[in-house]
Amino acid sequence: MTEKPNTLRLKRLGIDTHQEAIVYMRHDCLVCRAEGFSAQTRIRVANGTTSIIATLNLIAGDLLAYGEASLSEAAWTRLGVVDGGEVTVSHPRPLDSLSRVRAKVYGHRLNGEGLAEILQDVVDGRYSDIHLASFITACSAQRLDRDEMIALTRAMVDVGDRLDWGTSPVVDKHSVGGLPGNRTTPIIVAIVTACGLSMPKTSSRAITSPSGTADTMETMAPVDLDLDTMRHVVKKEGGCIIWGGAVRLSPADDILIRVERALELDSEGQLVASVLSKKAAAGSTHLVLDLPVGPTAKVRTEVDAETLGAHLMGVAEAFGLTTRVVRSDGSQPVGRGIGPALEARDVLAVLQGAPDAPLDLKDRAITLAGALLELGAAAPEGGGVDLADAALRDGRAWSKFQAICAAQGGMRELPTAAHTRPILAGRAGRIASIDNRRLAKAAKLAGAPDAKAAGLELHTHLGREVAKGEPLFTLHAETRGELVYALKYTENHTPIIRIGEG
Amino acid sequence: MTEKPNTLRLKRLGIDTHQEAIVYMRHDCLVCRAEGFSAQTRIRVANGTTSIIATLNLIAGDLLAYGEASLSEAAWTRLGVVDGGEVTVSHPRPLDSLSRVRAKVYGHRLNGEGLAEILQDVVDGRYSDIHLASFITACSAQRLDRDEMIALTRAMVDVGDRLDWGTSPVVDKHSVGGLPGNRTTPIIVAIVTACGLSMPKTSSRAITSPSGTADTMETMAPVDLDLDTMRHVVKKEGGCIIWGGAVRLSPADDILIRVERALELDSEGQLVASVLSKKAAAGSTHLVLDLPVGPTAKVRTEVDAETLGAHLMGVAEAFGLTTRVVRSDGSQPVGRGIGPALEARDVLAVLQGAPDAPLDLKDRAITLAGALLELGAAAPEGGGVDLADAALRDGRAWSKFQAICAAQGGMRELPTAAHTRPILAGRAGRIASIDNRRLAKAAKLAGAPDAKAAGLELHTHLGREVAKGEPLFTLHAETRGELVYALKYTENHTPIIRIGEG
Repeated sequence: MTEKPNTLRLKRLGIDTHQEAIVYMRHDCLVCRAEGFSAQTRIRVANGTTSIIATLNLIAGDLLAYGEASLSEAAWTRLGVVDGGEVTVSHPRPLDSLSRVRAKVYGHRLNGEGLAEILQDVVDGRYSDIHLASFITACSAQRLDRDEMIALTRAMVDVGDRLDWGTSPVVDKHSVGGLPGNRTTPIIVAIVTACGLSMPKTSSRAITSPSGTADTMETMAPVDLDLDTMRHVVKKEGGCIIWGGAVRLSPADDILIRVERALELDSEGQLVASVLSKKAAAGSTHLVLDLPVGPTAKVRTEVDAETLGAHLMGVAEAFGLTTRVVRSDGSQPVGRGIGPALEARDVLAVLQGAPDAPLDLKDRAITLAGALLELGAAAPEGGGVDLADAALRDGRAWSKFQAICAAQGGMRELPTAAHTRPILAGRAGRIASIDNRRLAKAAKLAGAPDAKAAGLELHTHLGREVAKGEPLFTLHAETRGELVYALKYTENHTPIIRIGEG
Repeated sequence: MTEKPNTLRLKRLGIDTHQEAIVYMRHDCLVCRAEGFSAQTRIRVANGTTSIIATLNLIAGDLLAYGEASLSEAAWTRLGVVDGGEVTVSHPRPLDSLSRVRAKVYGHRLNGEGLAEILQDVVDGRYSDIHLASFITACSAQRLDRDEMIALTRAMVDVGDRLDWGTSPVVDKHSVGGLPGNRTTPIIVAIVTACGLSMPKTSSRAITSPSGTADTMETMAPVDLDLDTMRHVVKKEGGCIIWGGAVRLSPADDILIRVERALELDSEGQLVASVLSKKAAAGSTHLVLDLPVGPTAKVRTEVDAETLGAHLMGVAEAFGLTTRVVRSDGSQPVGRGIGPALEARDVLAVLQGAPDAPLDLKDRAITLAGALLELGAAAPEGGGVDLADAALRDGRAWSKFQAICAAQGGMRELPTAAHTRPILAGRAGRIASIDNRRLAKAAKLAGAPDAKAAGLELHTHLGREVAKGEPLFTLHAETRGELVYALKYTENHTPIIRIGEG
């Protein structure tokens, strides 16, 4: 213990706990004893005027000397500390907003003030996983009504930054519940900006999938732009496709979504607030929402799509967002590639008008771009699809895409995988089903998304005839070890693609 | 990486995360890459045929060499591993029971089969904090009905050990929502066993309070007995007062209760299952339940006490437990001492019939012991209190208590604190209120419950007159530093005891 009360010297141990803030202290630390801290106590850790709330882990060995403490990597970054620097530790103020969560648990409605308090505590890192899970569960068990959805969306917008482009329309699109390979976004941005609309697009990286739109785009151009550079690109080219993590839009959503995923709970109210808070914060004015409907998609039935669509429209209206909902087929992967560079290859083929470009990806992009063009008044009602198709055919979209990539820092050459291996059809017949989850898993085991060239290439689709020995898909990996690993998984989980009678 | 796939060598880092199982692996570990593990992934860690589920933390520095892994202390113990030993890591099987939790979230009733699956996964350590919090929240938001309470209680009993004493009656008591200093248990066990009833009592240690019954008892005799020793003591003396942690009764309750506390959620259904699963597992047949009712107690109103009492009786009946509910005053601390040895001093004063023994503690013990004596047919209906009082007055209870302590390993001398400091009344007047929460905090800062002699001694009660300069309470600490620390807290949180007009 140093002379200053509750002050400890930091030693970096380099422990990565993902987002979770952990503070490590010696089990026989005098501060622990004095303050009554024990393992799992929530503690306020301050570096000057900056502070975070962290969970205490105690160290019994000699990793820390007397008077030393450490932080998990996430906490280290958030607190902006240096090795050897000092922090002070203390009890945090009581988590008063938890009484709002409890009221919701017991069936009371949440109002705007209550939601604002909860979301502020969430982005301040004051909610542990236990608190986050309880809030999310309460909002699923006691369904949010329309007013609560609007208030939640507003609270999520208010605790983050909000962009203002000083112009209208600013268009955006979102697909609810992604399908593997469904990389329409770069194509749509190219088409609608080529037709004069403004589309400053922020996308996410993969969390559990083999690639996110930002991962795919990153194989073609830099996506890690700060707000000033983003503004510069949008001013110059009318649009961009960047990673949303660098700009702080709806940061509460990033925190909540991880816990929702662990619970596989995805209530209507939270889905609506998640999607629309990002769009409202990004300064969008006109919005097309793609709802893929299918037995293994997020939205399973037309009835569900109807209800969800109505909520999305209602809440979007409260934020002054002009919105159109488009339902699409959610029964199988889109395009051929699964993995960052392999998906980019599909995107480029469509943009370049290559004869072998995947038609399904192209058709989806044109449909959604057409809706955006009509919504943003760049095309007459009913004329959006034709305009989108024309912009793609005459090369305007491709030129615009190249210009955007240049503005974002320069177009990149796609990496290719050193190791590939085709998986062959064991018999002749018709493709009866494709296991999307296992395909995604195989692509991840091959190294995607960290290994940009890794993943797999699909050679067939539902309902197609295949001959015995014809390749069904090809695994791509950057190292031999990863190829073997993905191959083993594929062999142990046959059939990922099921072949029925011809 | 060793030759065997997914095998890692263990290095003990000594990180105490309380109950949470964490596995530490290098961020550039080949197994992580191959399996697709990332920070916070839930991983199955196996030592031969024993396995646990742990959350992954990644180490960026040199704490671990290639091919090494580590475990949090809780995981280390549960897996029974040694430094340098090997473990294998893999993906756990899917957590299927989570679909039962989700069904409850969405308003479906839980049946016995569903609850059994959930509770099995809970005790197997397969639920992370996120999953536990969701289950607890769901059971509060979608109230458990009587049948669900019974099924939850049964599931909690079934996943642990169950004692059978081969005799009846086996009596027990429980106070719902403890008051500071309310250490009636050792007195009650002494009285009813002196009167011929069997009362094998397991108690808990403090988690957030300055002392649990097991902590207090431990200053008078060993409490850390295994099942065989416990049986021996009960056979010889008819009763015992031991720590319940050594025998595995309703282990799911220990896991759930920590999360309930963090959420400050304590639904009727979970409270009923928590109390009664422990009693049923302990082999009790006759049960007295003490419900202290007061504005800052767990049960706030007579109406709440009525409803809760009915559920407790109903579920107890389903397990064949003959039960009586006794309501008591829950408005202020009981006795004088707060802290292990100081509470033990009150207990001994009552048992020894000391003239200055705290009357409130004695009266409560006699009331509850009287109810148990009637319930267990050791006294006629209406004659329990007189018998209890007599057993206390004529020294039978004191003799029995000494015999029990001897059987548990020998009666101990109470430790006394080296440092004490009285806190004086700043003015004359009548005691208007006592802040139980802050009193408990001061006792903990003075070192309780780890420092057995530490805590505080109350010199007054609600409604009493005090003169200016008269001591209100005395702080007890084993070290000078802790005394100063508790003193500072007391000075900064004046008044803990509020004095009104005389």
